[in-house]
Amino acid sequence: MSIKVTKRSKDYSRWYTDVVQKAELADYGPVKGTMVIRPYGYAIWENIRNIADRMFKETGHVNAYFPLLIPESFMKKEAEHVEGFAPECAVVTHGGGKKLDEPLYIRPTSETIIWSMYKKWINSYRDLPLLINQWANVVRWEMRTRLFLRTTEFLWQEGHTAHSSYEEAEAEARKMIEIYRQIAEDYMAMPVYVGKKTDAEKFAGAVYTYTIEAMMGDKKALQSGTSHNLGQNFAKAFDVTFLSRENKQEYVYATSWGISTRLVGGVIMTHGDDKGLILPPQIAPYHLVIVPIWRTAEQKKQLMEEVAKITHQFNKEDVRYIIDDNEQTSPGWKFNQWEMKGVPLRMEIGPKDLENNQVVLVRRDTGEKQFIPTENLFSVITGLLEEIQNSLFQRALEFRDRNTHEVDNYADFKKIIESGGFVKAFWAGDGQMEAMIQEQTGATIRCIPFKQDQQGTCFYTGKPSGTIAIFAKSY
Amino acid sequence: MSIKVTKRSKDYSRWYTDVVQKAELADYGPVKGTMVIRPYGYAIWENIRNIADRMFKETGHVNAYFPLLIPESFMKKEAEHVEGFAPECAVVTHGGGKKLDEPLYIRPTSETIIWSMYKKWINSYRDLPLLINQWANVVRWEMRTRLFLRTTEFLWQEGHTAHSSYEEAEAEARKMIEIYRQIAEDYMAMPVYVGKKTDAEKFAGAVYTYTIEAMMGDKKALQSGTSHNLGQNFAKAFDVTFLSRENKQEYVYATSWGISTRLVGGVIMTHGDDKGLILPPQIAPYHLVIVPIWRTAEQKKQLMEEVAKITHQFNKEDVRYIIDDNEQTSPGWKFNQWEMKGVPLRMEIGPKDLENNQVVLVRRDTGEKQFIPTENLFSVITGLLEEIQNSLFQRALEFRDRNTHEVDNYADFKKIIESGGFVKAFWAGDGQMEAMIQEQTGATIRCIPFKQDQQGTCFYTGKPSGTIAIFAKSY
Repeated sequence: MSIKVTKRSKDYSRWYTDVVQKAELADYGPVKGTMVIRPYGYAIWENIRNIADRMFKETGHVNAYFPLLIPESFMKKEAEHVEGFAPECAVVTHGGGKKLDEPLYIRPTSETIIWSMYKKWINSYRDLPLLINQWANVVRWEMRTRLFLRTTEFLWQEGHTAHSSYEEAEAEARKMIEIYRQIAEDYMAMPVYVGKKTDAEKFAGAVYTYTIEAMMGDKKALQSGTSHNLGQNFAKAFDVTFLSRENKQEYVYATSWGISTRLVGGVIMTHGDDKGLILPPQIAPYHLVIVPIWRTAEQKKQLMEEVAKITHQFNKEDVRYIIDDNEQTSPGWKFNQWEMKGVPLRMEIGPKDLENNQVVLVRRDTGEKQFIPTENLFSVITGLLEEIQNSLFQRALEFRDRNTHEVDNYADFKKIIESGGFVKAFWAGDGQMEAMIQEQTGATIRCIPFKQDQQGTCFYTGKPSGTIAIFAKSY
Repeated sequence: MSIKVTKRSKDYSRWYTDVVQKAELADYGPVKGTMVIRPYGYAIWENIRNIADRMFKETGHVNAYFPLLIPESFMKKEAEHVEGFAPECAVVTHGGGKKLDEPLYIRPTSETIIWSMYKKWINSYRDLPLLINQWANVVRWEMRTRLFLRTTEFLWQEGHTAHSSYEEAEAEARKMIEIYRQIAEDYMAMPVYVGKKTDAEKFAGAVYTYTIEAMMGDKKALQSGTSHNLGQNFAKAFDVTFLSRENKQEYVYATSWGISTRLVGGVIMTHGDDKGLILPPQIAPYHLVIVPIWRTAEQKKQLMEEVAKITHQFNKEDVRYIIDDNEQTSPGWKFNQWEMKGVPLRMEIGPKDLENNQVVLVRRDTGEKQFIPTENLFSVITGLLEEIQNSLFQRALEFRDRNTHEVDNYADFKKIIESGGFVKAFWAGDGQMEAMIQEQTGATIRCIPFKQDQQGTCFYTGKPSGTIAIFAKSY
């Protein structure tokens, strides 16, 4: 397989698909819209997953597992929810060779089945809060699919919590969107706007939806994680009440929140360049690829001995490395291949380096090359990994900020959206106007950021407004 | 909820269901035969999963993820396979509001979809071996279901490897059954017979199936993990060939292997007693429950300070503890509850103990109670956990060996099977005789153990035989 990808600058969409396939992150499944996550792509997801799982547990959440198949009648209990999800469900009508009495939906999300169980488990305020997360696959029948970004089946986690007060549910929903922000920014080096969705964009069945929105390399937005305050909607639909401290029966308050394999697509599109993938060290399957460069078998032997000595001092968790001593490919081919796969650091070592007790280190993000004395290697590498992590975030942040434009009139708005970028503008419109803007420009309100401290004039209505909204085209 | 379970000695089957439900390991899902794995049960599965995942990675395997939905035509490509699995599949006929052109099967196992991908990925011997594992849910429409043991949907891992020679595939299949033995014996403290399945019991599409078989508390067998040498069956069905070192096109050799959430059922039935669950420390969500015993608020405050001091010295990984200072339940109630939940060690501490710089430790497995000076606590606890782990294994091993009987005639065979236990006997029969024995006694050949070094006479045919087989009724 060729190791060249279509240039990002030439055709962003083909570049993306090339990177996903040539870096062996994923492949198309046989059923339209499905995806096979290959080992290298899965390892990125595993890293994200492990980080998230640790943060969930540190904040008091526990994991559980609920069934894949949901009775049709459950889906229909929450009116907005069924309207939002039923059209995109896969339906099982036969099982064990027989037609089923009631069709079963493959979960598009698990609110309904989980709240049917919470009804059994929750009786009094002593059973609350209930802070459960599940790692699972879900299926949504999508018309236009793209590897990682929008697939018929995807992997995700879905948190489903139950609380005794609205305030507690609201605090939980906000806590989880903050955790998502940390995962995106501190680990994936992907800057995000954090805020609230408008009614048009919120989750089917939620009171409020909070979101993190990132800017991809083509200046489009990627909704990267959402957290919902569900109020009492699902508790009412499934009749889940609790005995309060004041000895009254009340409906339970709920949240749900999720991130998915879509994040892998976000990493690719935030950091990648013409050569392919660039992975932030925190989530990279390998931090370092070691390429020994030999002419003779004797040289190879000596180099491999030295490499063994060097890697012996590495702590497996601090420096995840891979040695490429393949005899069928040239050093140049290896450099290109591992650059395409986005490994943050490359170490080259040849007979000359061996003599001089040094190695060559090359950064994937900047291409910068330096000779490092072998004795300092471990600390230089860990230092560089930290630097790369920070530098990728800064680069992405500058790119986003440079391409986020403030506008005060609709003409400018349309220009920005057409030429690509986020619009940040005062907003006092309503849902109908939002729909009109989307129809005319393709842009939607990605979020109303939490931080609001300015007064101005709505670019669309001309009304005074204390609310800034972020608009963009999105994936 | 009552914390008493039906006595194990009185009604084994009700005892099992009671333990699963009252210890909050799992609950029934709304669709017949489905199961909700509750947080405490899921934590046991997570521990088993993490152990297995580490062992798989240490032996060179990588994780990936393949789609849930398999086109009907794929299922039909391997004749034995479709015959074995098609009758128990759940079938999706509608998606996105429309009838599908081709029905999709929810994976009952993933050989077919994985080998359809391997066809794309494997070209030459350089692409081999391919050592992929996936953690996933699968669905098999079961008529008679039991929580954890046999459910319509379950969680498992399935390894699917591709090799360039029969010998290598055979070695892989054997390596993985050995890893399963280690997981069962060294971590779950569950002794197993390791051996080969007869043709009647092997996997649909395999050349050989290897298995680990454990004895449950009611003397029935639980098939706890299987590993299959698939020969070239799936490679031929999906036309997967590779260019060999000798420059010939050859069909690829395959293995597959799996363990599932059924193992949680195995843990319960191997170690549990009249009071409920007993968990081996290696896979227990908590090693230690700490129960402070106070009369006054002041006493509670002092005790909790002491508990904080004590737990401060615990390394979170070495001693996974939980503190039960619930004010609404009595110490006695707590003791019973945590015994039912199978926590290996209980620490009690009251005002008197505080004065004497000691605590009380109680073992779940033996009920043994001892006073321990606070200063020695960490090393005593870690020592006791190791002792409990070993002792549970020994106890289960003795129970199994005591209930495994050698027989040399069919009359004795029938008596043993009827009164409960494993039969270990020389065997020279064929598949038809096996079926006859099953019909007459309910027992099947669980495995032909790998270790064979004796000569004798077949209990059924009277023929000379060098093969000992293990017979039992099974779950």
